[in-house]
Amino acid sequence: MLILMSLDAPRKDVDAVKKKVESYGCAPHEIPGDVKLAVGVTGPSSGLKEEDFAALPSVEEVVRVTRKYKLVGRMMKPDDTEVEFGERSVGGEELAIIAGPCSVESREQTFEIAHQLSEMGVKFFRGGAFKPRTSPYAFQGLKEKGLEILAEVKKRYGMHIVTEALNQNTLPAVAEVADVVQIGARNMQNYTLLEEAGETGKPILIKRGMSATLEELLLSAEYVVSRGNYNCMVCERGIRTYEKATRNTLDLNAVPFLKKESHLPVIVDPSHGTGVRELIPSMTLAAIAAGADGVIVEVHHNPAEALSDGFQALTPDAFRKLLSKIKQLAPVVNRATAEL
Amino acid sequence: MLILMSLDAPRKDVDAVKKKVESYGCAPHEIPGDVKLAVGVTGPSSGLKEEDFAALPSVEEVVRVTRKYKLVGRMMKPDDTEVEFGERSVGGEELAIIAGPCSVESREQTFEIAHQLSEMGVKFFRGGAFKPRTSPYAFQGLKEKGLEILAEVKKRYGMHIVTEALNQNTLPAVAEVADVVQIGARNMQNYTLLEEAGETGKPILIKRGMSATLEELLLSAEYVVSRGNYNCMVCERGIRTYEKATRNTLDLNAVPFLKKESHLPVIVDPSHGTGVRELIPSMTLAAIAAGADGVIVEVHHNPAEALSDGFQALTPDAFRKLLSKIKQLAPVVNRATAEL
Amino acid sequence: MLILMSLDAPRKDVDAVKKKVESYGCAPHEIPGDVKLAVGVTGPSSGLKEEDFAALPSVEEVVRVTRKYKLVGRMMKPDDTEVEFGERSVGGEELAIIAGPCSVESREQTFEIAHQLSEMGVKFFRGGAFKPRTSPYAFQGLKEKGLEILAEVKKRYGMHIVTEALNQNTLPAVAEVADVVQIGARNMQNYTLLEEAGETGKPILIKRGMSATLEELLLSAEYVVSRGNYNCMVCERGIRTYEKATRNTLDLNAVPFLKKESHLPVIVDPSHGTGVRELIPSMTLAAIAAGADGVIVEVHHNPAEALSDGFQALTPDAFRKLLSKIKQLAPVVNRATAEL
Amino acid sequence: MLILMSLDAPRKDVDAVKKKVESYGCAPHEIPGDVKLAVGVTGPSSGLKEEDFAALPSVEEVVRVTRKYKLVGRMMKPDDTEVEFGERSVGGEELAIIAGPCSVESREQTFEIAHQLSEMGVKFFRGGAFKPRTSPYAFQGLKEKGLEILAEVKKRYGMHIVTEALNQNTLPAVAEVADVVQIGARNMQNYTLLEEAGETGKPILIKRGMSATLEELLLSAEYVVSRGNYNCMVCERGIRTYEKATRNTLDLNAVPFLKKESHLPVIVDPSHGTGVRELIPSMTLAAIAAGADGVIVEVHHNPAEALSDGFQALTPDAFRKLLSKIKQLAPVVNRATAEL
Repeated sequence: MLILMSLDAPRKDVDAVKKKVESYGCAPHEIPGDVKLAVGVTGPSSGLKEEDFAALPSVEEVVRVTRKYKLVGRMMKPDDTEVEFGERSVGGEELAIIAGPCSVESREQTFEIAHQLSEMGVKFFRGGAFKPRTSPYAFQGLKEKGLEILAEVKKRYGMHIVTEALNQNTLPAVAEVADVVQIGARNMQNYTLLEEAGETGKPILIKRGMSATLEELLLSAEYVVSRGNYNCMVCERGIRTYEKATRNTLDLNAVPFLKKESHLPVIVDPSHGTGVRELIPSMTLAAIAAGADGVIVEVHHNPAEALSDGFQALTPDAFRKLLSKIKQLAPVVNRATAEL
Repeated sequence: MLILMSLDAPRKDVDAVKKKVESYGCAPHEIPGDVKLAVGVTGPSSGLKEEDFAALPSVEEVVRVTRKYKLVGRMMKPDDTEVEFGERSVGGEELAIIAGPCSVESREQTFEIAHQLSEMGVKFFRGGAFKPRTSPYAFQGLKEKGLEILAEVKKRYGMHIVTEALNQNTLPAVAEVADVVQIGARNMQNYTLLEEAGETGKPILIKRGMSATLEELLLSAEYVVSRGNYNCMVCERGIRTYEKATRNTLDLNAVPFLKKESHLPVIVDPSHGTGVRELIPSMTLAAIAAGADGVIVEVHHNPAEALSDGFQALTPDAFRKLLSKIKQLAPVVNRATAEL
Repeated sequence: MLILMSLDAPRKDVDAVKKKVESYGCAPHEIPGDVKLAVGVTGPSSGLKEEDFAALPSVEEVVRVTRKYKLVGRMMKPDDTEVEFGERSVGGEELAIIAGPCSVESREQTFEIAHQLSEMGVKFFRGGAFKPRTSPYAFQGLKEKGLEILAEVKKRYGMHIVTEALNQNTLPAVAEVADVVQIGARNMQNYTLLEEAGETGKPILIKRGMSATLEELLLSAEYVVSRGNYNCMVCERGIRTYEKATRNTLDLNAVPFLKKESHLPVIVDPSHGTGVRELIPSMTLAAIAAGADGVIVEVHHNPAEALSDGFQALTPDAFRKLLSKIKQLAPVVNRATAEL
Repeated sequence: MLILMSLDAPRKDVDAVKKKVESYGCAPHEIPGDVKLAVGVTGPSSGLKEEDFAALPSVEEVVRVTRKYKLVGRMMKPDDTEVEFGERSVGGEELAIIAGPCSVESREQTFEIAHQLSEMGVKFFRGGAFKPRTSPYAFQGLKEKGLEILAEVKKRYGMHIVTEALNQNTLPAVAEVADVVQIGARNMQNYTLLEEAGETGKPILIKRGMSATLEELLLSAEYVVSRGNYNCMVCERGIRTYEKATRNTLDLNAVPFLKKESHLPVIVDPSHGTGVRELIPSMTLAAIAAGADGVIVEVHHNPAEALSDGFQALTPDAFRKLLSKIKQLAPVVNRATAEL
């Protein structure tokens, strides 16, 4: 950490800063400049808080030079984390393909889609039983009934279930059925939910908040991992920008950046990331080319009748074509798709 | 609602759209254009969902022409909502001045600040007992102990307490002490928390999410009001933009816009909205000039020692000077400050 | 400047950094930390470029601790700049009120508006002769003919003319008529135009680019001032964010920030800053309360017939009411409005 | 176009809207709803301007349902535009690989890089002679001397030169040497420069402005094409968002969106789009997977010594490795790379 003070800071202010540094067991180093006076900090500075210093007299700026996240960082654990699911894993060589409808709408709809995906070799099935909706008047999901249907799908097709936990009340029920508990974008900074989800021991998939920085996303993952649960994955799903041609701006820079900074698996959601059906196949390929460990794609056998987000669902046919492209692309980026 | 289809849409696609419109008890109207075919909808269209139509074949765009929020809108209730607190209210002529430290840090600190604010005539005391923090390693508040201190302040100085409910677990305890239950920016779309907070019957203050649109903010308020709780206030606290000179970009456009669209009281938080101590007095005055019903300002008797956000707290002295400016400004915008 | 290197940087890399620092006549200081090695720089470091160091081996981050702008900064010139216009000035105690139509549309329209504004005591008349338009097919202004009309207005009513120079070709003609040459938001980083405008010696008003940082705005002003022209003003006119309820997000934080950092006068444009007629009066008052040296407001006697941006123009009547509010507000923020 | 009026609009206001529609030779259609009254417009509505109607009494919103751009749209010209360069073209099956240093710094540096790139089969050489810089004190390029060096490179290696025209003054000199005249992000809405560049007849590469929408980018291309110059290419180079982990947010959604909407070739600049050397190879592959017609990548034989943006330049070795990956990837997306 580096504390920048005004050049004409009185001696007592400089001393106060140095004393505060020492109170943390660190050593302060004065570096006078031509415009400002810098106080550099050496020692075990990870416990220092910027705000402690920012408020001191004559302090103009505090510059943090170390990362805020620890357990999720490559510095702490250089090797890729692989989240295990029986005979397969996410985060290793094999690409994770997660597909299914936005919402579980009925037993028939869910089985129809699951059946087709299963035939294509897809091993991870997504589908929301509890749906967070901006308006209190929108369809909120089949809830417990939806979980039952997902449990049946799991039993019948042997697919791993990825589904969202919306709140603390329903987390236990979700965790019982889910193989991956998804934390949605709106809940990325619902720290209580993150902690409780972490404690279930289930693999967790955290979606990036609509305007979360990548550092904040990793810190949310830190909430999970700091509860002892290393089975944590992060998901880029588009951020909110001024551009309105697409629903969100899919930030693929996030993929190589997260892979560089963290050992956690990185998943991309091109359905929410574009919100435009025609753009999804291109952006799925782009995500994999960028280095993603997997993709999560909305597939619906009848998008026109979908109860939510039908406009961003691929049909099973379109998805099958996309899978064949993915199989061609995978080896270019040293990935396997043996199961497809 | 207006459904725009491609000009060369086959008859069956157009008929499918019209049939779907009719299934909602509405009437479709074909309006052929030179580039697209529009289908206008008349009748009780508020139940229609854009996504239902967006996914139908040949549909290019769905344009919603009505507001998504209802109970919180001026259309439904033209008169300003005044939230009552015994002999005073928020949302009427009197400006609401809410002040206090970011966090309740100790009994001494809290009483020291409360005492000074009380002497200035401040009637609403803010202070966080539960603090949401981006990092799991940061100070998370005194929790239950903090609530006890707030209850004492309330008893001693007769001030109304504004404090945040962080999650469902602690909501009942918070609601017992708080006169206003604050929902923080990170929880603006934690719908379960909004609903449960609404059901406490306590006045609710919802802070705008970091990148929430004003429509989304009003829809979050709709979650509270639709539970029968009209004692709901919304708070502009700065949004996230590319600009880094300030912590957030305080969007004061929100104030006249929200007042135009909704009957709910609008509060502004210039402390978070700037994150720079020197800018707070100017932006507090600007908020009031823009038409805010009140402001919420961080005040700390010793910002240098504050456990959180000290850099954006005013000292009691600076706040006293600001209050004298507020008193001069209020009549210009037809506001009263009798209690100051 | 501070150069952060990886802890395990080989000695030759550290030496290369130190040598490069010395090549600028500065002194390097090694500060080893627990996670990174910092090299602090003292001496005349303003000539150093971050990118020179960022590209060196083992360098992880370069932190600039000094401001990039010089002549426009308060550090260089602590006193407010007042731009003189005969017996009045902008940037001093007197508030500058600039008003008029978006575009000069005809002699009749321009005189009608100018006449009414003149009667109200307005001394600065705005109106575009050359209009930058996103589409090549939109109305581009009356051009030279528009300048002639502005020259007549100036002669007849004695108002100072504020009008935009769109490009280098027409700059000389604009500078002949204009008392203030406006550089539009789209041209904020058209450095050649800035330099040539600066060299006319005329007062310059630079509008903030749609997504320019405040530092970039000041650096654009630096282009003008570094040509020896201190008669330079900057204008906040709304930035581009995700929020679509308003045309732009008026960033009033910019006002106290710019006043703190720079000695140049700061003007606010609430017409572009909101793009919604009903919000303009509130935001004009907010701008003045925030500390602006003046405002620039679109006024049209018949907004329904305006050839551009009629939706964000006030009628003369609405503007007259606003002026009476401004007169009440001014003394609260220590401003004069003697001429109104 | 659709004009939405308040339900209680007086008859005369509705008639005024209908009359205005008719004055453009179009036909108005009243569609009464439950919340608003819509007036649909049929006929040759492309000449109508939203703002004409937005300002009329009782009008609440104007909804444009047709695209603003014409000549650059697929609707007008469904076939891909291929910009010809002798025996090769951009926009067809062959991927365009454009590479070179950010700035032309010296004859030696330029030849060194050009030589290596030429050996790799690269046919398009980039390099700035005139550099737009945020600060007036930064290196502004070798200017005319830089153009001379580029002319020599062209002659010696037979590569096509891509270089930026910074302003009208230097456009003729640039156009004489350049095979592709680049319009930089800061000048994307410098319409005069666009028009004059268009008139040179040279192929034009327009970079997306830092916060330009895709519609605005296409409208800027429309300025060029409307001057009769169809040799126009557009370039995604990252947009400005709140995220600071990368220099810009590379918006790859833009690629399939632009390809869907327009027939113009789409190029991607992953160097500016990330600003982080380690992320460039991944994002180059992602751009191609997303469907880009080409990429423009900064390559420098000695990034540590580069006079500008060295931190985002690849070394020739790293670029060579990237090319071998591109060759593997191209056939997956039906692209050729015969010349590499």
